[in-house]
Amino acid sequence: MLELRFDTGKIAATEPETVGKLASDFFGDRDGETIVLMPEEAMYLMLFRNAIMRDAEGKEMDFNSLAKHFVRDEPRLFIRYNAYRDWRDRGLVVRRYRPSIHGKHSKKTFKKYPDQKFEPAAISAKAYWYPDSLFSVLDNEEAGLEIFNKYWLGQYGVYKQERGRQSKLDFFETIFLAKHLGVDVVNVANGRKVTPLKLIKEVAKKREYAKQLYDVYEDWRMKGYVVKSGFKFGSHFRIYFPGASPVKGEEWIHSKHVLHVFPKEEKLLISEWSRAVRVAHGVKKTFILGVPELKKSDYKELPVDFVAYRRKMGNGAWVRETPKDKPRYMLIAVSEDEHIGGVELASLLNMAKDMGLNLLLSITDRETSITYYELKKIVLPGSKYEYYEIEWFKP
Amino acid sequence: MLELRFDTGKIAATEPETVGKLASDFFGDRDGETIVLMPEEAMYLMLFRNAIMRDAEGKEMDFNSLAKHFVRDEPRLFIRYNAYRDWRDRGLVVRRYRPSIHGKHSKKTFKKYPDQKFEPAAISAKAYWYPDSLFSVLDNEEAGLEIFNKYWLGQYGVYKQERGRQSKLDFFETIFLAKHLGVDVVNVANGRKVTPLKLIKEVAKKREYAKQLYDVYEDWRMKGYVVKSGFKFGSHFRIYFPGASPVKGEEWIHSKHVLHVFPKEEKLLISEWSRAVRVAHGVKKTFILGVPELKKSDYKELPVDFVAYRRKMGNGAWVRETPKDKPRYMLIAVSEDEHIGGVELASLLNMAKDMGLNLLLSITDRETSITYYELKKIVLPGSKYEYYEIEWFKP
Repeated sequence: MLELRFDTGKIAATEPETVGKLASDFFGDRDGETIVLMPEEAMYLMLFRNAIMRDAEGKEMDFNSLAKHFVRDEPRLFIRYNAYRDWRDRGLVVRRYRPSIHGKHSKKTFKKYPDQKFEPAAISAKAYWYPDSLFSVLDNEEAGLEIFNKYWLGQYGVYKQERGRQSKLDFFETIFLAKHLGVDVVNVANGRKVTPLKLIKEVAKKREYAKQLYDVYEDWRMKGYVVKSGFKFGSHFRIYFPGASPVKGEEWIHSKHVLHVFPKEEKLLISEWSRAVRVAHGVKKTFILGVPELKKSDYKELPVDFVAYRRKMGNGAWVRETPKDKPRYMLIAVSEDEHIGGVELASLLNMAKDMGLNLLLSITDRETSITYYELKKIVLPGSKYEYYEIEWFKP
Repeated sequence: MLELRFDTGKIAATEPETVGKLASDFFGDRDGETIVLMPEEAMYLMLFRNAIMRDAEGKEMDFNSLAKHFVRDEPRLFIRYNAYRDWRDRGLVVRRYRPSIHGKHSKKTFKKYPDQKFEPAAISAKAYWYPDSLFSVLDNEEAGLEIFNKYWLGQYGVYKQERGRQSKLDFFETIFLAKHLGVDVVNVANGRKVTPLKLIKEVAKKREYAKQLYDVYEDWRMKGYVVKSGFKFGSHFRIYFPGASPVKGEEWIHSKHVLHVFPKEEKLLISEWSRAVRVAHGVKKTFILGVPELKKSDYKELPVDFVAYRRKMGNGAWVRETPKDKPRYMLIAVSEDEHIGGVELASLLNMAKDMGLNLLLSITDRETSITYYELKKIVLPGSKYEYYEIEWFKP
């Protein structure tokens, strides 16, 4: 039987057998002959290890009467507790986060993506801009075929069919062609020239975050990637690595990555953010999140919930890691009904990287079931933006 | 060779062979010996039937120079044209919409859902409310087990495991239990009672549209449905038909429907809206959209793009339907980068229903590829809200 005591704001174990059991299972912090516990640990021990909690007068306390004393300082106590519970439930160790911790991974845990300089050819054509449709139509079929085959820019003919010869450009392509390939864009209604800058401004009035989306589009295009609509996969874009073409080989090339833009000032519901990741995983594509426009001064220090340990190979079998090992993960506890912002996400990733930890989001849904996502930084050579791969994770 | 002429703002065919061909394929409207075409039809004929378009002076015109004359009155001309093109590309007939049209279906094309009165038992328990976590914890394990087994309210123990005896309630359940089963909800920090009304207000400060979500939750619960988190399926809720229980039978019951709330004042990007439908379809669940709080005065008359014909069985084979038949669909052309609102959707559905048409959304993505969604009205007996099933559709 584990015996715990709550006194003067602190939860502790002093009874020798309890101290021994807690120490061997890496609960709490030792202070001489005593073990001091954080509330999440005590709550877990009460519900799943039959621990008895008593107050200073020896009266037994339950989950809610203990929580009462901590919920003012930690308003999100229940979400934190639930994240703690789930990790422990898997037989793994999770501990209070401390800024002094250093993790298992060196600072170079990012994934490097290839790049290939975009080499623009001058295209002699005019694009007729349909402002309310956010499309333009090229007036020159040969030029349309050339840019489609060479850069996979525009849609020549009917999608995935060899029919029709019209070249249609979405608004990203229209702006990109005007800016980098010298294509004249004119308003179809009056024949007046529209500059790339004016195009962006015009689109931004109709489509939120158009500038941020274009910046990310251009960033990948300039590194040789093909960037097309991600509509069918629930994201802003799908991308193909440098060298992809719609005409090479017998079969249609399938993209393996989708790219979603998370503007730094946007706040998204966790459930909405997760929905986009979910569609990508459902079609077996890697989900990339891009946060454009971040400046050094945008990054914040944020509260971190836990550090988590996983498993290692020991004597030919998988054993759990303990505080004798270095932790692997920075664990952030959120719920499906909370919000997250681009800046927060980028800041957390930066903190995790500096500490040699991988970033894990632990999402509590309304049934207290947990979904984990792991975030890994991408290096896209020459880019000034932040990109992350987000993967569904099983502890 | 089809010969078309643009003169004084009108597109027409007068050359007899052309008139014959157009008439037999149901393009345009007859006016004596002439056929008058809408711009989308003419654009399609130019690009895919080698039609030659000449102006009043006999000079040949291309797609953009024709569009120029119509884009002021129809700013979304390109999106409309593309929707028209895709339907025609499938060998099917599509025509200009006219309010006088009457469709193939009677007014009773809605789906009727079952209902079963919710029978509340008085539950003697206290729920401790964690305001920032948006959860409450019941103080009574037996009551927790009872409401879980009887109503599938709350989460008793660990999700999908027979471990732990704590009963956790999400915020919808907390409000519902307080309102309908007499459970006392108290703030965990100070023990003060929180009324259902105060709970909703408090949650609404943290979670946008909390009231609308709760209204829909309660609406289905009161008709005997089980309503749980739809987080894993990218929607607000998943539902089980009356009679479902987490303990019946050997196997876990799978929900077959997800329920998503679209507040009437919300404007959603088509791509975001479609993302939610996509996740549901990916896991083979029926997607239900609910628009709460609609009043009669909310409904609008909206412009409609086309009516569309499909196929019928004729002489043992499928043949296309023509204007000699009644049309089946009201076709609305949108693009992935446009917005749609709850009121607009409900208004369109109402118009379609009144005319005996089914509502189809034709979504143009940035590659001009089209995705169709069909919307069908649901009748949930006794409900004052609007619900629709949304299904992916192949013409």
